[in-house]
Formats: sequence, structure tokens, C-alpha cells
Amino acid sequence: MKPNFTLRLRVFNLNCWGIPYLSKHRADRVKRLGDFLNMESFDLALLEEVWSEQDFQYLRQKLLPTYPAAHYFRSGIIGSGLCVFSKHPIQEFTQHVFTLNGYPYMLHAEYNRQKDTYLAHRVAQAWELAQFIHHTSKKADVVLLCGDLNLHPKDLGCRLLKEWTGLHDAYLETRDFKGSEEGCTMVPKNCYVKHQELGPFPLGIRIDYVLYKAVSGLYIFCKTFKTTTGHDPYSGPPFSDHEALMATLCVRHSPPQHNPSPTHGPAESSPLTSVLREAWAEVDQGMAQAHWWATMAGYAVGLGLLLLALLCALAAGGWIREAALLLWTPSVGLVLGAGAFYLFHVQEAKGLCRTRAELQHVLGRAREAQDLGPESQPALLLGQQERERAEEQ
Amino acid sequence: MKPNFTLRLRVFNLNCWGIPYLSKHRADRVKRLGDFLNMESFDLALLEEVWSEQDFQYLRQKLLPTYPAAHYFRSGIIGSGLCVFSKHPIQEFTQHVFTLNGYPYMLHAEYNRQKDTYLAHRVAQAWELAQFIHHTSKKADVVLLCGDLNLHPKDLGCRLLKEWTGLHDAYLETRDFKGSEEGCTMVPKNCYVKHQELGPFPLGIRIDYVLYKAVSGLYIFCKTFKTTTGHDPYSGPPFSDHEALMATLCVRHSPPQHNPSPTHGPAESSPLTSVLREAWAEVDQGMAQAHWWATMAGYAVGLGLLLLALLCALAAGGWIREAALLLWTPSVGLVLGAGAFYLFHVQEAKGLCRTRAELQHVLGRAREAQDLGPESQPALLLGQQERERAEEQ
Repeated sequence: MKPNFTLRLRVFNLNCWGIPYLSKHRADRVKRLGDFLNMESFDLALLEEVWSEQDFQYLRQKLLPTYPAAHYFRSGIIGSGLCVFSKHPIQEFTQHVFTLNGYPYMLHAEYNRQKDTYLAHRVAQAWELAQFIHHTSKKADVVLLCGDLNLHPKDLGCRLLKEWTGLHDAYLETRDFKGSEEGCTMVPKNCYVKHQELGPFPLGIRIDYVLYKAVSGLYIFCKTFKTTTGHDPYSGPPFSDHEALMATLCVRHSPPQHNPSPTHGPAESSPLTSVLREAWAEVDQGMAQAHWWATMAGYAVGLGLLLLALLCALAAGGWIREAALLLWTPSVGLVLGAGAFYLFHVQEAKGLCRTRAELQHVLGRAREAQDLGPESQPALLLGQQERERAEEQ
Repeated sequence: MKPNFTLRLRVFNLNCWGIPYLSKHRADRVKRLGDFLNMESFDLALLEEVWSEQDFQYLRQKLLPTYPAAHYFRSGIIGSGLCVFSKHPIQEFTQHVFTLNGYPYMLHAEYNRQKDTYLAHRVAQAWELAQFIHHTSKKADVVLLCGDLNLHPKDLGCRLLKEWTGLHDAYLETRDFKGSEEGCTMVPKNCYVKHQELGPFPLGIRIDYVLYKAVSGLYIFCKTFKTTTGHDPYSGPPFSDHEALMATLCVRHSPPQHNPSPTHGPAESSPLTSVLREAWAEVDQGMAQAHWWATMAGYAVGLGLLLLALLCALAAGGWIREAALLLWTPSVGLVLGAGAFYLFHVQEAKGLCRTRAELQHVLGRAREAQDLGPESQPALLLGQQERERAEEQ
């Protein structure tokens, strides 16, 4: 980029609510979304919950002239539902699958914010995401994180993510916002939103984000930020049960007075340390719970095996043979079910343990940095070794 | 580092063969390994197959004075078995779990190199590892990859890894090698190595590596490289069924004539393109196979459900009631087993599809670069946009 040049980047984001057979008016919504994206010709369109690969292929064909580059992220059994359309070539893509993804045996929890059983997993995912950004963006020009994070702005996961990565929230940063009240991305005015879904937030919730930062030598700011407001941009029926986000970001060379977001060194600053501590405590509690469930499941496996042995003995002895045979299947079911439950919680505990270890390490280094004072901070591996055994060539 | 300074890095690597109850003389071997590591005082000791966390804790205590920093990598159900001991502080750690990890329903395949059922997974893992290094090391000084890769030097996975990352093989690069013939890391002289394990390689195999590269402004070379030769360094019983690797690496500022390994741009160079094509074909074939297995499993689920319905009808009608009850459990087993098999192969196909898409993207970009010639290469997003809409500030 030339020194005085400003690069303008127009970004679109939407959770498309594209569940085959279940989401209402899917085909029509996808069609209208495609028309809109073609007309607006954004630089980047980032879509979530495009669960059907056919929908992606349909959009790909339709958007090809305006967005020649596209990618659908496949993973797991049902896929990630994520896709990206870009006006510019995609240099590289990669994908990270979270270690912990909730409890497969529970239906997706209604928003119970008093007793969120998923809290430890949400925090672990936020940390994993933050670490992914931290480790992969060191030489980036700009980092952009868009999407439905399933986190409210003040939620621990959201604060952890922002503090650790230094990402800025387009809605909070822009001076030119147009859209729903308080930037909400699920609003009661949207005809696809059930009022129960909003739980204790009858006016709406903000869980979809455009977050950004510049890494080095560059400066980024959000010029305009828009959301839809319960219907599509032409006041027609909405594209989804979520609102669409549209941001215009400007990137330019960093003037000396503008320090770009630091790729933080030791975490000695207070808001970061406090959110790290809070996350540590949450993950620690989740780990204790996972251990408890694993122990209970272990007992249940033992019980099931005992029952099976008893039934075999009864059947062999000729007593209540039919009843024994009838009970055989549920007993096998108990052993298998409890076994799966046990394995699930063991790996959950290991996953949370790993997150806790990483948080602890970061906190430990912050403490060391505080104890030793600022002059200790350049004491990195190379520097230290240099002092230790200086073998001059 | 001062301009003329050379940093010496002494690295130790060993696959410890530490399976509780199964690996012979585990406690004794771990004890002797600890003594050796303390005496030698390496900069880094990297251990694999430390499956018991107690073994890690034992080593941690024992090595604390010499190696104040240590980390044990937890993951999945049985853990990763990986740990690291360092004389220097560990700034950060992170962990990547492979998407594909072989077939849980098969026992670990004997080395059948004519018909390696795991080949597609090995290639996918090698690519994932290469991509992990590629995406996380852009601002690193030096990259070091050590361990048991379960790949021979000429295997597709190994070539892919080296070509895509630009990593150098310490054994091949050093001028001062001492150790087993051809650098083998599993040798018939080792009393823990069963001759069947070596299959068609009676003289030994080389599957453990020390790989390295410098990223920018630095230059790295391997001064000395040693392996043990079937017994421990004091000619006593071996530390493991694998041989230990010991490398002395030297890092210095890159003189102008020494170009550090490039963090490759478009893959227009021929050996890389050809290995990428080979990998693509292998993964593509694996994908077709995964689809085939998923389809078969789908049929088996259908069959099981049909059988269950039939048994219910028979039992309800009062016919051969006992036989129907007896067959109930195996039928449920068939449905559940085939269902699990189906889900496994669906996610396998998705994982391979993802690898194939990444390989295809890289190959596509290489082709574009070739078609357009070298002058097209700086046409990155920012540069392009700059031309497209230059709005001078």
C-alpha cells in the first residue's frame, strides 16, 4: 500500500439459519440473500449455519461473477455450516475444530443464564479461539473475526476473547451505526424469532459480531456499521432469524501516534489478568464436574456388569428365564451407554485440564513479569542463552 | 543475539515406549533416562509415548533442577503421551489434535507397506502437521520438529511434510553423525525390538526425526547428530524400543549469501507440485473408500432395523418367542454398531474431503502462478485492491 492510501473493506456477515427441513422458507431466503449479495458486491461475505451443501453450491453458482472465490468448510459429521465468498482471491484457508463442543446427549440448552451448564465449554472454546488467533496471526496485516459467537458482550467468553487477542468490536467502535437497538442481532421484531428464545432479554440479544485488529504497521477502524432490523434491507421478510451485519472497515498505514493493538507480551495488565483468573476458576469448576460425572458413569458401568452377570446366572439356572432374557437388552444398553458417558467425560476432563494448564501458564508468566519488574521482559530464550554461554565466533 | 554470536541448542528426543503394564522394565528405563538427561543437561528433551502421567510427574521431580520448565500434553481419552522438558522458560505452548487418527475398530496395523490401509490418514496427518507449522511459524525464529513420525524418509507423508514446510532433516544435513547404520531409530540389535515389527526391513527403520529450519534473518545448521545403537549411551540396556536422538544445532544471523528456508509462496517449483499431486490422489482414493464404507454401513443399519421389526412382530404374535428375544440383543447390536461405523466413515470422508480441498487450492494457486508468470506473484489482496479503487486520502 502507498503511504497515504486507505484500503476500504466491506464485510457482510449472517447466521443463515439454514437447517434442511426445519428452517422456514429456506430456499426463498437463500435466493433473496444471493440477490442482495450480488447487488451489494461486498469484499467478503461470511455465512454461518449453511448446513446444506446444496445451498452453498447454489450460492456459489449464483455469486460466481461477483465473488469469484468461495469456500465451504467441511468437518465432523454434520459439517461446520460455515462458508465464505470473496471478491478477491483467497490465498490460503485453514480450519480449527474445537476440542470441546458441549454435551451430545443434551438437547441444545435453552438460554438459561442463571445455570448455564455449557459455561466451562464456552470459556474453553473462547480461549481456544483466542489462542488460534494469537498463534496464527503474528505476521498478519489485519485480523477479522466475524460470526455468531453465541456469547453476549459481557459474557466471560467474549471478554476473554477480546482481552487476549486485542480485537475491537465494530459495533462499539464505529461512529456511524445504523440498525437495531443496542446492535442486537436477534430481535423480537424478526418474525422467525420465538419470544422464548430471547428468554430474559425481551428487547433482543447481541451475539453476532464483527471484530477486527491490525497487527503491525497498520491501523484499522470501522467507518460504518449496519444491522438489518427484523426484515431484509428492502423491508421484505428477513433473511434469517439472526440479523445481518454490514461493516465498512478502513485500513491504512499506522501513523506514529497510532499504536496498533499489541500482540501482548506477559499479561501484567489488570483487566486481562482478572479475566484470565475468572476463566481459570470457571474451567477448574467444569473440570471437577467432569471428573464427578466420569466417576458416576464408572459406577454405572460396574452396576450394569453386575446385573448382566446376575441375569446370566438366572437364565442358566432356569429361573424366570423370560424375564432374564427381557432384561438382557436394557442391561447391555446400560453398560454401553454408561461406558460411552464415561469416555465422554474423561475426554471432557482432559480437554478442560488442557485449557486450565494454558491459562495457568499465562497467569504464571504474568506473575513472574510483575515480580521481576519491566526490565525482565526481554529475557527470552535467545537472549538468556546468549548470556549463559557466549561463545564468540 | 549479537551479530557474530552462534547459539548452540542441544536437543534430545526419544519415543519412550511407556505403556503401563505392557512395556517391559518401564520403571527402570524411566529412572535411567532421568539420570541420563540430568547428566547431559540438554537444552530441550522431547519425549513421546509417556502414556502414564505418573511417569511424567516422576521425571518432572527428578529433572526439576536441570530442566525447570516442563509440560505434559493432555488430550482425548488416553492422552497424547507427549511431554517436554526445557532448561529455559517455556514462553507459550499450544497443542493440535489431528482430525483423522486411523480406525478405532482396527488393532494397530502391522507394518504392511504393500497395502497400508492407513495411507490416506497418514498423508492427511502429514498435511495437517505441515499446515500447522506453516500457519503458526510465520514470525518464529526457528522451527524444530522432533519425534516419531511413523513415516520412513521416502514415504509420501514425510516428503509432503518436508517439501511444504521447508524443514531440514538433521540426519541428512549434519557432517558429524555417530550412531546406528543409516540413522535407523528401530534396530534389530535393540533387545525390545521384535523382528516381526521391522517387517521387510531387517536392518532397521528410520521413523524418528529431528527436523529444523530458520525462518527469517537467521540461519540454522546441525553440527552433530547422534543416535543410540540398540543400548543406552553407557552400553547398558536400552532406554526404549526406539533409539534416542541427540542433535546439536547452531543458530546464527544469516549472512547475506545464506538464504533462510523460504516460507514458500505459490508452489510453482516442481518437486513440491509433484508431491502435492501425489498426496491429492492418495487422499482422493481414501475419500472414495470412506464413502463406500459409509454406504455399506448405511445398508447394514437398514438391515438391522428390518430384522428388529421382524423380531418384534414374531414376539408379539407369540411365535418362537424365546428365539426372538434371544435375537433381540444382537439385532440392536447390529444397528448400533453399524450406526457408529456409518458415523465414523462419514466424518472420515469429511476430514479427507477437507484435506483434498486444501491440497487442490494450493495446486490451483501454483497453476495460476505458472500461467501468469513470476510478475503476478505480488498480486496479493492488498495490492490488488489498491489498484482497484485507489481512493487517495
